[in-house]
Amino acid sequence: VTIIAACQLAPTVGDVAGNRVRADAAVRAAAGRGADIVVLPELVDSGYVFNDRSEALGWAQPAASSLTLRGWSEAAAELDVIVIGGWCELRASDTLCNSAAIVDRTGVRALYRKAHLWDREKLVFTPGDEAPPIVDTPAGRVAVCICYDLEFPEWAALAAHAGADLIAAPVNWPLLPRPASERPAEMIKAQAAAAVNGIFVAVADRCGVERGVDWIGGTVIIGPSGYPLAGPVLADHTATLIAEVDLKQARDKRVGDRNHLVDDRRPELYR
Amino acid sequence: VTIIAACQLAPTVGDVAGNRVRADAAVRAAAGRGADIVVLPELVDSGYVFNDRSEALGWAQPAASSLTLRGWSEAAAELDVIVIGGWCELRASDTLCNSAAIVDRTGVRALYRKAHLWDREKLVFTPGDEAPPIVDTPAGRVAVCICYDLEFPEWAALAAHAGADLIAAPVNWPLLPRPASERPAEMIKAQAAAAVNGIFVAVADRCGVERGVDWIGGTVIIGPSGYPLAGPVLADHTATLIAEVDLKQARDKRVGDRNHLVDDRRPELYR
Repeated sequence: VTIIAACQLAPTVGDVAGNRVRADAAVRAAAGRGADIVVLPELVDSGYVFNDRSEALGWAQPAASSLTLRGWSEAAAELDVIVIGGWCELRASDTLCNSAAIVDRTGVRALYRKAHLWDREKLVFTPGDEAPPIVDTPAGRVAVCICYDLEFPEWAALAAHAGADLIAAPVNWPLLPRPASERPAEMIKAQAAAAVNGIFVAVADRCGVERGVDWIGGTVIIGPSGYPLAGPVLADHTATLIAEVDLKQARDKRVGDRNHLVDDRRPELYR
Repeated sequence: VTIIAACQLAPTVGDVAGNRVRADAAVRAAAGRGADIVVLPELVDSGYVFNDRSEALGWAQPAASSLTLRGWSEAAAELDVIVIGGWCELRASDTLCNSAAIVDRTGVRALYRKAHLWDREKLVFTPGDEAPPIVDTPAGRVAVCICYDLEFPEWAALAAHAGADLIAAPVNWPLLPRPASERPAEMIKAQAAAAVNGIFVAVADRCGVERGVDWIGGTVIIGPSGYPLAGPVLADHTATLIAEVDLKQARDKRVGDRNHLVDDRRPELYR
């Protein structure tokens, strides 16, 4: 079995050093609870609510010299965990990306740049143009995408069809109005992405108020049937959810005796 | 405004005449409550749990002479409503389809044959190979798909991208195990289909026990944000849900100031 941890944290915009310390503490605590895979929120080093692009530029680093990635690599090696989290990347001298990384004991295995940008992110970041990367690990095949990406069913399908067992999703879900007692639509879409594709989805959301913006605090670990295995938190506090899973269950796409999530698709009709 | 009614009924397998009477009564009652559009369950004339294919063959009729379609057409003309429901179609001398129709005061406007077959339906029916039809009505553009179809995100997207404001979904959702207090995954996928595409989705499910099979009773009318506007029923009794909507809201795909459900898609990356 594999133990997945999804950590809900409260980064402080611009307190990059403090944010790294808090994320590192969360990774270590999760490892202490046996985690094999630890998922952290989106932009967990920089925070999210930038006043302007130049602020973000001041807090971003290139992958090769990122202290965030170095810290995750050191923790991954020391603790033998896989860390997946979001960070603020300086991709070229003046290009910023809302990025994520999959890091294991050997170092950075994959980098990903958010391809679907939300709201003011469009003023700050350059969207990525590559599909979610998939890293083959002893536990299973792990993909990553970021927040709003997960609201485009094609994106999760791309990863699933390419063999992903788990999509780890660093998110910062802003709190929007919704009917009382309803789960947020973002979570519904994440559950549907899991169920439609028969994969695990681990969402690490943030909490805390940042420059007046509130968050859903919707950290959740979802199984291949679309139902939560842990969480959702749905509260404004830090938390680490733990789920013990067999990621390879995601490779059996049969549904009962006569149905199959992939074979029942009719892609020739979907054009 | 447009008033949508979604009717949860309990057909009895093989009691085709009685099923037609019950569906007709539901349409008339909904019209009495002001409904402009009435959605009925899947295979509402034949029932669902066939012992074998020959049974279904005995209860199916061709579209041209279907008493089910004739009854809906008469009711639609008399009451000036749009009726969308599922029925058992004899398509050629030996071809059965799990079909639906969109009927208005002028008669049958569109026929649809379920393209994704569930479980033992594969032993009985021939799948359709055409996209959900869309009928332009004074209330808005109405599409139809059937039950398991709705679990393939591409299918709702096809209809939405072709201009549908509403997907009417006759379903027979069998009751499968799920965690206590969780909505069924079928409903989660229907909510996601609405939210991802910014369209209305009206699901008419069945109830009653048929040859030992139980049903979700999950009739629900969902708005373009993915949240229920009426229901879900989630109980084993007949019911008619009513929602007063402006279907043309579905044509505004903007999300806040900087996002757009269609323009934010990156189809060139989805291959």
